[in-house]
Amino acid sequence: MRQLPEPARESLRLASVLHALGDPIRLELARRARETPESTCSALADGLDVPMSTLSNHWRIMREAGLISMTVDGRHRRIRLRAEDLRDRFPDLLDPILRLAEAEAPTSGTR
Amino acid sequence: MRQLPEPARESLRLASVLHALGDPIRLELARRARETPESTCSALADGLDVPMSTLSNHWRIMREAGLISMTVDGRHRRIRLRAEDLRDRFPDLLDPILRLAEAEAPTSGTR
Repeated sequence: MRQLPEPARESLRLASVLHALGDPIRLELARRARETPESTCSALADGLDVPMSTLSNHWRIMREAGLISMTVDGRHRRIRLRAEDLRDRFPDLLDPILRLAEAEAPTSGTR
Repeated sequence: MRQLPEPARESLRLASVLHALGDPIRLELARRARETPESTCSALADGLDVPMSTLSNHWRIMREAGLISMTVDGRHRRIRLRAEDLRDRFPDLLDPILRLAEAEAPTSGTR
């Protein structure tokens, strides 16, 4: 298992985290990643009508912003939301946002 | 005074609001807009090293996401953060984010 590069906790920037959450697909992926820790990219994207290349781009943006950790596990890529790092750096940010995302109508793959 | 088009309160989308806040310059403009209500675009952008065309684009993104109202007042454009609409639609979202933005080092115009 190999972990892909990600920013250290102390390098997380608020604007980058908000940008990573500022897309309906990424917001939904983050919500699902919290619900199902250590799940795979493909399982988390199940049912979302998004091309594979777009999805890869979404995961990269989320990883580079420090929202998720991504581990290569054979043919799979496993995702973990960096909830503790985010809570440490930005208290009262992630939980309210994911709660609000939950309350909004489920995304249908469109903005 | 003429108000530029903006989404109704009930049409605000969480992902769009997060996207509007997900840029260091826009985050700083939102913070300043809250501090100085009804200020002008140019006054709020004072000291930020950003080209005028980029700034116009930022204001448009913020307006279209429902983060700000923009009013044409003669040669000026006045900005008002839609704090009440946002609090109504997304409780516990805007205030923590602007507090965290305040706590981060002041932006120098770079991401």
